[in-house]
Amino acid sequence: MSPPRSRIPVAVVGATGVAGQQFLASLANHPWFEVKRLAASARSAGKKYRDALTESSGAFRWYCAEPLAPALAELAVEDAEQMDASDVRLVFSAVETDAARVLEPRYAHQGAAVVSTASAFRYEPDVPVLIPGVNVDHLGLIEIQRRKRGWKGLITPGPNCTTIGLCITLEPLRQQFGLRRVLMTSMQAVSGAGRSPGVLAMDILDNVVPYIAKEEEKVEKETKKILGRLSGDDIVPHDVKVSCTCTRVPVLEGHTEAVFVELERPASVAEAKAAMRAFGEGLKALGLPSAPERLIHVHEDPYRPQPRLDRDHGDGMVTVVGRLREDTALGDTALKYVLVSHNTKMGAAKGAILTAEILVQKGLAG
Amino acid sequence: MSPPRSRIPVAVVGATGVAGQQFLASLANHPWFEVKRLAASARSAGKKYRDALTESSGAFRWYCAEPLAPALAELAVEDAEQMDASDVRLVFSAVETDAARVLEPRYAHQGAAVVSTASAFRYEPDVPVLIPGVNVDHLGLIEIQRRKRGWKGLITPGPNCTTIGLCITLEPLRQQFGLRRVLMTSMQAVSGAGRSPGVLAMDILDNVVPYIAKEEEKVEKETKKILGRLSGDDIVPHDVKVSCTCTRVPVLEGHTEAVFVELERPASVAEAKAAMRAFGEGLKALGLPSAPERLIHVHEDPYRPQPRLDRDHGDGMVTVVGRLREDTALGDTALKYVLVSHNTKMGAAKGAILTAEILVQKGLAG
Amino acid sequence: MSPPRSRIPVAVVGATGVAGQQFLASLANHPWFEVKRLAASARSAGKKYRDALTESSGAFRWYCAEPLAPALAELAVEDAEQMDASDVRLVFSAVETDAARVLEPRYAHQGAAVVSTASAFRYEPDVPVLIPGVNVDHLGLIEIQRRKRGWKGLITPGPNCTTIGLCITLEPLRQQFGLRRVLMTSMQAVSGAGRSPGVLAMDILDNVVPYIAKEEEKVEKETKKILGRLSGDDIVPHDVKVSCTCTRVPVLEGHTEAVFVELERPASVAEAKAAMRAFGEGLKALGLPSAPERLIHVHEDPYRPQPRLDRDHGDGMVTVVGRLREDTALGDTALKYVLVSHNTKMGAAKGAILTAEILVQKGLAG
Amino acid sequence: MSPPRSRIPVAVVGATGVAGQQFLASLANHPWFEVKRLAASARSAGKKYRDALTESSGAFRWYCAEPLAPALAELAVEDAEQMDASDVRLVFSAVETDAARVLEPRYAHQGAAVVSTASAFRYEPDVPVLIPGVNVDHLGLIEIQRRKRGWKGLITPGPNCTTIGLCITLEPLRQQFGLRRVLMTSMQAVSGAGRSPGVLAMDILDNVVPYIAKEEEKVEKETKKILGRLSGDDIVPHDVKVSCTCTRVPVLEGHTEAVFVELERPASVAEAKAAMRAFGEGLKALGLPSAPERLIHVHEDPYRPQPRLDRDHGDGMVTVVGRLREDTALGDTALKYVLVSHNTKMGAAKGAILTAEILVQKGLAG
Repeated sequence: MSPPRSRIPVAVVGATGVAGQQFLASLANHPWFEVKRLAASARSAGKKYRDALTESSGAFRWYCAEPLAPALAELAVEDAEQMDASDVRLVFSAVETDAARVLEPRYAHQGAAVVSTASAFRYEPDVPVLIPGVNVDHLGLIEIQRRKRGWKGLITPGPNCTTIGLCITLEPLRQQFGLRRVLMTSMQAVSGAGRSPGVLAMDILDNVVPYIAKEEEKVEKETKKILGRLSGDDIVPHDVKVSCTCTRVPVLEGHTEAVFVELERPASVAEAKAAMRAFGEGLKALGLPSAPERLIHVHEDPYRPQPRLDRDHGDGMVTVVGRLREDTALGDTALKYVLVSHNTKMGAAKGAILTAEILVQKGLAG
Repeated sequence: MSPPRSRIPVAVVGATGVAGQQFLASLANHPWFEVKRLAASARSAGKKYRDALTESSGAFRWYCAEPLAPALAELAVEDAEQMDASDVRLVFSAVETDAARVLEPRYAHQGAAVVSTASAFRYEPDVPVLIPGVNVDHLGLIEIQRRKRGWKGLITPGPNCTTIGLCITLEPLRQQFGLRRVLMTSMQAVSGAGRSPGVLAMDILDNVVPYIAKEEEKVEKETKKILGRLSGDDIVPHDVKVSCTCTRVPVLEGHTEAVFVELERPASVAEAKAAMRAFGEGLKALGLPSAPERLIHVHEDPYRPQPRLDRDHGDGMVTVVGRLREDTALGDTALKYVLVSHNTKMGAAKGAILTAEILVQKGLAG
Repeated sequence: MSPPRSRIPVAVVGATGVAGQQFLASLANHPWFEVKRLAASARSAGKKYRDALTESSGAFRWYCAEPLAPALAELAVEDAEQMDASDVRLVFSAVETDAARVLEPRYAHQGAAVVSTASAFRYEPDVPVLIPGVNVDHLGLIEIQRRKRGWKGLITPGPNCTTIGLCITLEPLRQQFGLRRVLMTSMQAVSGAGRSPGVLAMDILDNVVPYIAKEEEKVEKETKKILGRLSGDDIVPHDVKVSCTCTRVPVLEGHTEAVFVELERPASVAEAKAAMRAFGEGLKALGLPSAPERLIHVHEDPYRPQPRLDRDHGDGMVTVVGRLREDTALGDTALKYVLVSHNTKMGAAKGAILTAEILVQKGLAG
Repeated sequence: MSPPRSRIPVAVVGATGVAGQQFLASLANHPWFEVKRLAASARSAGKKYRDALTESSGAFRWYCAEPLAPALAELAVEDAEQMDASDVRLVFSAVETDAARVLEPRYAHQGAAVVSTASAFRYEPDVPVLIPGVNVDHLGLIEIQRRKRGWKGLITPGPNCTTIGLCITLEPLRQQFGLRRVLMTSMQAVSGAGRSPGVLAMDILDNVVPYIAKEEEKVEKETKKILGRLSGDDIVPHDVKVSCTCTRVPVLEGHTEAVFVELERPASVAEAKAAMRAFGEGLKALGLPSAPERLIHVHEDPYRPQPRLDRDHGDGMVTVVGRLREDTALGDTALKYVLVSHNTKMGAAKGAILTAEILVQKGLAG
């Protein structure tokens, strides 16, 4: 498909929260999409967006580094419960899981393609958990989803922000060498927890917290699904064994993951690097505005990747890998490496926008 | 052996550096040991210890939380190159590796038991790398060491600060269930790098550094040696496979390690916890002043251990474990857990002092 | 008064929150006080204290470094709305301001001496804002308070945690040299904001926040009241001019304040240091268990005080001063200095306990 | 002057250090300047710049967020002691003070305009300490400097990084209302200390350090000089009284300063804001590539400025002010405010480049 002739009307739901703001920051000058509707809870409904973010103290609760676009600041906020999605083609949903369970099917029923950062539908058999460049073929599920649920629109959630960098680096290894086992320890940024309640400074300064509720289960389950194979009406999960320990560290943005992986077939370090470096060429070729040049950057400097230095590589859309080397313990065909992935860019809003671009390109949005 | 009747004269070499200061802080009220000599580089020699730490700006470069004992403050600092160790029974050495290579044999030759935090002699076949409670039988090497080198004294270095917590938690598993493979990712405190050059704030604030030069090799090599078996004149390294990724995080003290371990024989989570909780009873029974009640504390709270909350458990001598659970990927008999170990207490000066207590108790010091 | 013969029964209200926990940690082995009752919101009422802190995930929400005393862990939590304070002599109140406004008078009416960390009654003309060693004579208000309000008990709130270190250092200067003007910039620890909502890591890592709502007004108003003079039924506020800028920094505990002060009469740096160093002798002489040797420690090292190194001086009860020097801009008789004060020890629970000891010693509690 | 027709050849001395790298990062695409020569210590001389930054471990010691321009990476590094500056028109000097004292006059003698971040010449009577937009008229000293020293070139150091934001905000107040007294407390970023030795993580995590050697004297002295008046062959320092306390906080970039200022004539808060907001219009009008739209941005949100959120305003060239309000203690015509200034952009390399642009525009460079 060639780029759309006029900009496509989209809505952002959960617009006043951090994740919603990240959608607005990323959509501000988007060549294909135009934000027409903003929705949030009833408390903000009826206000101008700018006013909904302004507290009585004068504090302005806009949390992105990018400034708020003046046009968006003037938009009126709607009540997400009341919003009619039938005149937009895409809904970017950044609401909490419970709200997502109710609202997202409603918008999908009204005809919108709902691209979501919530986990509510990730584990439904007819819902793909899409990572651009990794499992676009899973969009074959959409037809089944529509048939089964009677929707004109669709729902495609993105994966957990810890899953995404892992799957992006595993997929080129899977394609060329096969995967047997993955053991991963994450060191996750505080922004992954959002703001309500978020991570308190008291809990994380000079500290590591070795547990993030439900995170490890999500990574393990989503990784198998994403790397799985569409077969008939179902995704057959990949039989790779995945085990992880997810921790929180005093880092603002950028999840770091130390990965040990056993392959099915031997790969030299050079071959593995080459596979990663080539990964994502096809995506760029599609002409999607948010696609990076490549999906993975591989460092030779042993002190990289570092979340502060590497999270913004390719505007936060590139997974940065380093320390790729043989592993001596996991098996005869094992490697280990460290990755950094931007949890609130590729891992959330900007990743979802790239997914939306693919939906448009495939003729699935509107 | 019963406790010594009068306090044993000891020397601290490298006394002005951070590690040396930690020796002094820990020895201040030691019931068995009395610091008689302090040595450092020629630059400090001849000064009172207090003055050697005081800069012209008035800054007082004492880095421990514990105050400097007044009696130690008044001791004169000797030149480590010139110090005669023949009238002390123990030398605690906190010098750099290159200096250790020259100085430590000299003191051992003069008759002192040298307990060292340096790595200079760790990989010599006749030198035990001692962890109290783990491999005290390796002291059988001392006789060989003395015979081969013609020393009246001896050298026993402690392990790398990252190795120690790992081996302490692996040993009870080894004893009861056998070990096949260990995969570990560390999140290490900045104090592990000391002060020269140490870790710059610019490099670690809001960041993780995924590499510590030579650290992984040390952990892998030392772990096999420490868990190995004394046989004839040699230590046969344990054939457990060990692979790790060592990272630095913005934490002051306390190394955190995420461990995946495959056992030879199945262990339930409850059995593994029980083995860890019982570990170190014998050590306490020996009546050593620095021995903790047990060597390992196991938490049930999934949010523990955390370095800030757990590093000082048992005055920094206890390795704290949490999140002990089945591992689903490494093998049929695998577990995973997280540990926190105080890198500058059990992992350095205080661990070395406990080793010295064992040497005294075995009649090996002086 | 000599020490009480048997331990005095006390209650802690707001016991499950951070400030309440700090009361329990500090009262665990208190020689005079015995915690008989614990109260919190209805949500916790009826549970054992230990259970009230334990979440369904297994997380144990005890936030103090000191372990929870086993006896306290087994106490049943009461509903603060229902608690009858008539059989305790002291109530330590750590509830929010709105709850304090309702509950504290009720307990005072029932006969308890209520020592509070809440601000609800600080600005009432018949309520002293007590700092031990600074304005104990303000307890003369209690008689007026009782008369006017018909209470058998009393309410004495402590000051804001930022006010306390400032007043402790100003009082010896006031006594000897008089005070004209004070300009102060604070760098406050995150623990000062508590946990609900507290300071998010996202907001303070690699950052300074230059505003704390209502803080500057509190410091300015409370300082004048605390340094004021009891005259008849009223406190005449001191006419010192006070202006401050309160900021938040990425520090866990310990407020740092940079103070510029103009005196009425000239003081050399040496005289000012001497005045500060002598301050608090009388308090110690009273035999109060929580009183430190002196209220102020003055450093000569220009790099001190630092919150991490100095906050625990005298178990957190001593205000630590450094960089005391002439000021060249504020006036001909001006000084400047930096102080560190432990905001959750002397600045909250432990300061309140010291106040309670004074109440007992003066025969005002029960 | 209109923009130069062809790019002006410039040299960067001290090119391998952090400050030198910042020059290179900022000059990479500069429309007027072209880096022709790089110089550093003898240790790096003869190597390609890229190789001079690469350690044997593979670590690449480039410390800027901006990537190193490929063309610069290939330039050969010269020995600063040997470099002949006669074929460049500008030398950007980022060497240490001692080296600056020797090297900078040599380059000035060879005909170059030396713009320096070192303090070596700041306090010479014939050397202006230039802040663009604040005291450009001080360039009148250059003629005297050349006459007195026999140079064809010149030396203009920038001020200390803590002075610059202070003077930029004071100058519009001085112009409209006059200045009597300034009391300032700084909370400075760790990058201000550079890398050798720099600030250790061990010293600043969870901490504030209340002293920076010589910093307060620099700010006090430089502020009076910069705000002073050129009269004949001399600068008459402004008679404003300046007193400050300079502290270090755990912030990467961006100095925060809490300022109390007494004016000569009354200014309402609105008038002071207006004066600040208008400041720097003239500079932009000159067509200098590095000049920001305005020199000061004034926030109404009381929670601003924050170093992490505001340091990059106007690409690090804008001083951001907030909390501008009446001061009640310093005098009848006093204000207080908080500012954030980027210490390594406007406060170092980029500020120096803007100064160089002014020199070119005034015909003083080459």
